[in-house]
Amino acid sequence: MPESAVPLPAPKLGEPYLLTPGPLTTAYSTKETMLKDWGSWDAEFRTMTKSVCRQLVALAGDTSGEFICVPMQGSGSFSVEAMLGTLVPKDGKALVLANGAYGLRAAETMRYLGRAYTLIDKGDYMPPRGDEVAAALDADPAITHVVAVHCETSSGILNPVAEISEAVYKRNRKLLIDSMSAFGALPLDVNKIRYEAMVSSANKCIEGVPGFGFVIARRSVLEAAKGNSHSLSLDVHAQWAYMEKTGQWRYTPPTHVVAAFQEALRIHAEEGGVAGRGARYTKNRDVLVKGMRDLGFETLLKDRWLSPIIVTFFCPADPNFDFSTFYDLMKAKGFIIYPGKLTVVDSFRIGCIGRLDEHVMRNVIQAAKDALADMGVTSAAPPEAAIAERAKLAA
Amino acid sequence: MPESAVPLPAPKLGEPYLLTPGPLTTAYSTKETMLKDWGSWDAEFRTMTKSVCRQLVALAGDTSGEFICVPMQGSGSFSVEAMLGTLVPKDGKALVLANGAYGLRAAETMRYLGRAYTLIDKGDYMPPRGDEVAAALDADPAITHVVAVHCETSSGILNPVAEISEAVYKRNRKLLIDSMSAFGALPLDVNKIRYEAMVSSANKCIEGVPGFGFVIARRSVLEAAKGNSHSLSLDVHAQWAYMEKTGQWRYTPPTHVVAAFQEALRIHAEEGGVAGRGARYTKNRDVLVKGMRDLGFETLLKDRWLSPIIVTFFCPADPNFDFSTFYDLMKAKGFIIYPGKLTVVDSFRIGCIGRLDEHVMRNVIQAAKDALADMGVTSAAPPEAAIAERAKLAA
Repeated sequence: MPESAVPLPAPKLGEPYLLTPGPLTTAYSTKETMLKDWGSWDAEFRTMTKSVCRQLVALAGDTSGEFICVPMQGSGSFSVEAMLGTLVPKDGKALVLANGAYGLRAAETMRYLGRAYTLIDKGDYMPPRGDEVAAALDADPAITHVVAVHCETSSGILNPVAEISEAVYKRNRKLLIDSMSAFGALPLDVNKIRYEAMVSSANKCIEGVPGFGFVIARRSVLEAAKGNSHSLSLDVHAQWAYMEKTGQWRYTPPTHVVAAFQEALRIHAEEGGVAGRGARYTKNRDVLVKGMRDLGFETLLKDRWLSPIIVTFFCPADPNFDFSTFYDLMKAKGFIIYPGKLTVVDSFRIGCIGRLDEHVMRNVIQAAKDALADMGVTSAAPPEAAIAERAKLAA
Repeated sequence: MPESAVPLPAPKLGEPYLLTPGPLTTAYSTKETMLKDWGSWDAEFRTMTKSVCRQLVALAGDTSGEFICVPMQGSGSFSVEAMLGTLVPKDGKALVLANGAYGLRAAETMRYLGRAYTLIDKGDYMPPRGDEVAAALDADPAITHVVAVHCETSSGILNPVAEISEAVYKRNRKLLIDSMSAFGALPLDVNKIRYEAMVSSANKCIEGVPGFGFVIARRSVLEAAKGNSHSLSLDVHAQWAYMEKTGQWRYTPPTHVVAAFQEALRIHAEEGGVAGRGARYTKNRDVLVKGMRDLGFETLLKDRWLSPIIVTFFCPADPNFDFSTFYDLMKAKGFIIYPGKLTVVDSFRIGCIGRLDEHVMRNVIQAAKDALADMGVTSAAPPEAAIAERAKLAA
């Protein structure tokens, strides 16, 4: 993508940019659609729901009608639970691949459901690889489903879903993908990566506001899922069946959030869909990473594993650095950053997604530079332990 | 309440009034708060959540700190399921009192949960009475909890929760109340009606926009509920424990919806709290019912059982009357009404809640009058079967 000459407009109400994995800074026109009240039973709103679902299936690359989109009220984790509870049958067994909080949360969900699962836990950020998945599946024929996280926002790592998918389907198992923070900016085309269902939410790379998620599932898989769900509210099959019959959500939808999402999808298409959105985020990340490295910061991940979604930086070893102070200084300069989730060394995260561009990212770098100076931090270099930690990961 | 001299402002974007049980017509300033993006991790948003919960507990009449408010993402039904799954233990047994869709939904939730329950189903609208509850509890000592619906919006009936509560606690059982469509306009003061927990949602009588609900529960009950929940996302205990520790919602909250709700609460307080809100809705209902009766329509319920939330009217017997046409005509005149849910005779419903007043209600009457004329309906009188149906209910 060429450097954009015209910067994106700043948030109109002067609030700080949200450099987080969601909720995000969204377009003003997206929020403006929320100035109206919709009747959820009314034809206009039903048309809106139908249009949103059709567009989401298209973003997943399906044009054959083989896949169905079912929206679900609540946060993204509600949709993950809905997908697992509805699509992993009561006598099934899941292999959950974890390298951060979201993989572990999927495992915790299985535990709540009282359904069989086994876990490959790679720790804070090491990626689960295709050969490990293959070995685990070969060792345990009871496993019916594999659950993978596309971009694990705990570290910002882009997990190798293509090689995981290959390992899964070579062994005739089924893949479910949590693509929460990636879908809409990173390709997850059903024609290129095989999977049974994936889940994402309104307030990630499509740049809507939070309030619902959605499951995109193979029709045959959904049809076979009747009666699986542990929860009435989170029953994806029941939600789908009701929607097919009536055009309405089963229970009250977050009408304003859905309207905002429709505008967000319009902007997404205007920007060039998944490719255009992904290009802007990639540019954001490249400007961010280069600028931060120039200041002396180091990333947790080697370039190969960096997603264009969110980046983890090590906290500087300098004793004058204090994350809470850094957070407040960055906020005062107009940027809300995000704490880290590593257990071994201190870190923080900066998101690349939302209604922001490379111009904003350059201002982020300047703000970080000024914040370091404000704190009297002379070097942003991380401690030795951090470098040792990173050395574990292949380039 | 005296007749208000100054009408409430009309919706600014010219959309029709929503005369439904929610989503509602909300104040413009409520929607305007959604023009900003909030970081859910940030201190400002945490303060907002805390303030909202504190105000809700106060609306329930608790000033002693004995009750706790736990918000929950999703629609109201998600919160009902969360309350049942968290507060009825796995070895408990619920008596569900149903006289419409929402009571039956609570029973269906118990079935999904695989927990013991028994049902008193009074049909489309007959109220469950204290003596029936007493008899059922005396007959079955295994029952630990009673689940009652405050205002059953299927018919608009105001159920006798006070006499139900009395029957429940005389027999040392526990009461859980679904006050979805009533809380905020009808008193449910913990000092006057005893209960363990109640549930409502953002987009009902507080006049917020849809996207979350909340459970107000006795602290001791919540403390004892750890490990009960069938669902990770809907675990009210886990949501509460996390919020106590961090001030944050466990998973991404619908930030814009929460901000809108805070403004809705401000307007609610300004209007005089539960009493003021209830008075306006009562006036709305009185103007509506009188006007519709003057046109020849009849209500399903006798006056004693009419709630100020939503009113069911019988469809006219006149063969020229067609609900779908009536709906479209009313919508074209600026009012979205609601279909009925009676199984025996045809009906429709008109809501009295949301940002609307008696002036709006007078316009509704005029619109209904004109719609009848447009359809060539000469009498709005219901069929004999409807009158016979109504005769079953005590005055």
